[in-house]
Amino acid sequence: MIVIAAEDVEAIPVTENGAHGTTIRWLLKDTDGVPTFAMRQFVVEPGGATPRHAHAWEHEIYVLKGICTAFCEGETRRVGPDHAIYIEPNAIHSFTNEESEPLVFLCMIPIG
Amino acid sequence: MIVIAAEDVEAIPVTENGAHGTTIRWLLKDTDGVPTFAMRQFVVEPGGATPRHAHAWEHEIYVLKGICTAFCEGETRRVGPDHAIYIEPNAIHSFTNEESEPLVFLCMIPIG
Repeated sequence: MIVIAAEDVEAIPVTENGAHGTTIRWLLKDTDGVPTFAMRQFVVEPGGATPRHAHAWEHEIYVLKGICTAFCEGETRRVGPDHAIYIEPNAIHSFTNEESEPLVFLCMIPIG
Repeated sequence: MIVIAAEDVEAIPVTENGAHGTTIRWLLKDTDGVPTFAMRQFVVEPGGATPRHAHAWEHEIYVLKGICTAFCEGETRRVGPDHAIYIEPNAIHSFTNEESEPLVFLCMIPIG
């Protein structure tokens, strides 16, 4: 069993082109021995955003705090806490914080 | 993109032998088209527990509310909100709520 507090994990700034005001914490990852999927926690500050991009793997997201403005393939949804979001593989997507409080969400991705 | 509120998903009682006071909501599952792993939300009422069992797949858990008494292979940990828990494949495990408030956690598992 591994138990880890999110606050004890280093918050790494997301520096990919188009990202701003966003950090990522890798809570469970391949080097922990997890075999199938990784768990990350993102914090997006007010006015911040993840990059608008696409990739071959899916996202499964759970909003913990704040409001996520989720863009995916031309559709924009405002999503509050205790909602799940699924982003299909290869879909163009981004997550923006248009509010005055931080946005915190989990984002799981497959490994490999 | 799929967006789903946890509260809009049916809470199904867990009836497996040894479970009590526990419901499961399947937030993202294979029939939604998710390819790799499923997202479920559990609520364990005070005094409730998930069954003590083992299986060939892993769990990745994130505690949302309450305190989880997590048992795994002889080790017991009390785990509060905003902590991740990893349970290895084939490990004997259970999750108990010994507190007076509901325990709510996400539990992701691989599909297939």
